[in-house]
Amino acid sequence: MATVKALLFDVFGTLVDWYGSIQERAESIAAREGLALDGARLALLWRQRYAPSMANVTSGKRPWCDLDQLHRESLDHVLTELAVDLPSPARAELVAGWHELRPWPDVVANLPRLRAQRITAALSNGHVRLLVDLKRHAGLDFDTILSAELARSYKPEAVVYQTATRLLGLEPDQVMLVACHAWDLAGAAHAGLRTAYVARPAEWGPGTVAAPVSADMHARDLGDLADQFDALDRSARSTASG
Amino acid sequence: MATVKALLFDVFGTLVDWYGSIQERAESIAAREGLALDGARLALLWRQRYAPSMANVTSGKRPWCDLDQLHRESLDHVLTELAVDLPSPARAELVAGWHELRPWPDVVANLPRLRAQRITAALSNGHVRLLVDLKRHAGLDFDTILSAELARSYKPEAVVYQTATRLLGLEPDQVMLVACHAWDLAGAAHAGLRTAYVARPAEWGPGTVAAPVSADMHARDLGDLADQFDALDRSARSTASG
Repeated sequence: MATVKALLFDVFGTLVDWYGSIQERAESIAAREGLALDGARLALLWRQRYAPSMANVTSGKRPWCDLDQLHRESLDHVLTELAVDLPSPARAELVAGWHELRPWPDVVANLPRLRAQRITAALSNGHVRLLVDLKRHAGLDFDTILSAELARSYKPEAVVYQTATRLLGLEPDQVMLVACHAWDLAGAAHAGLRTAYVARPAEWGPGTVAAPVSADMHARDLGDLADQFDALDRSARSTASG
Repeated sequence: MATVKALLFDVFGTLVDWYGSIQERAESIAAREGLALDGARLALLWRQRYAPSMANVTSGKRPWCDLDQLHRESLDHVLTELAVDLPSPARAELVAGWHELRPWPDVVANLPRLRAQRITAALSNGHVRLLVDLKRHAGLDFDTILSAELARSYKPEAVVYQTATRLLGLEPDQVMLVACHAWDLAGAAHAGLRTAYVARPAEWGPGTVAAPVSADMHARDLGDLADQFDALDRSARSTASG
């Protein structure tokens, strides 16, 4: 693992708390509009439509479009399901909420440590503009932003990991995906990348249980991951000089 | 100009000193190899082949390839011209020098000021990996790296500016190219972007004279540009509240 040259970070769930951020924003918008809305339920139902909405694109059933559009369509379905009649501008505000999610508490302090150790980049299904906004809002520190948009596809399609690897001028086994989702790590492994699992037990809110995930490295959070790279690099240096 | 939402920075010449950096590296490599070499002459001859080498790609005479390859081919020509028989690994080291150029003295302190004012990105003919290395080496602070590579073309082709604008989800007149080269600013203006000229009188070494350049804004350096945006934004705020 010491030979890994670049770390690619999944973003939604891995670096930022979509559940808590969307819940809060939804309840604040609903209150302003004088509507009753369970923000946590909305966040969960909305996110459940995420993978199927992208599968419609990657299967070729519809041409590529960005997450703002997929999020808006999914939100309209969920609000119908919940029988909440939110006006269109308020729906747009909710969709924009995915550009302004808050980072998990270990993220802002440890991304610069990891960037000092390796090349770092986002690799998210969010489009470039969404990720630029999120990086600015949440104070995320990467060398650059890579996105599924650059492959006009969505993870876990191999072309997304391959495009990022090519743009970094590296071989797949020199690149590691850092993520909290088994499906994303499996997609990266299938494309020949290394993988690091970061546990985010609160991603789907309280009371959910995480299944064991297969990956090359396992970390409690980004601080733990940076510690593990410190130890790997110290050991590689002492082997080289020994 | 206050309505500009994103600044795209040209890199070679505008943010980093290729002339001085390449001169120094060439002379240090030549000395180590026991060869006589005029580093300044090499830097100038090498850079003169830059535009023609990219024109071979944008004209369709050859398929897209990255700057490492174009730089290597141009270097081989220049060394033949100078009758300097540099070994191949030393040539590769020189080509890698374009990943490690030093920033002009005003750059590192003022990019964060500009990033606080607007979305910022590199937009260079350097490929993504070269720019990642350069950003890390020179301490350049952008929100993200955009590159002509993402359009598989080279500036001043309109598709390069258009691709960057699309990835930022903006209209052309919301985007400003910041550059020290008339040809780059003209290409951006042709694609509908706003333009800011930054003077780099020492780009081609001592004794060169800069011609007047047409652009929406003119700045002595990045500090001056950030001051001008401060003034524009103050004035826009006072108009809005007045």
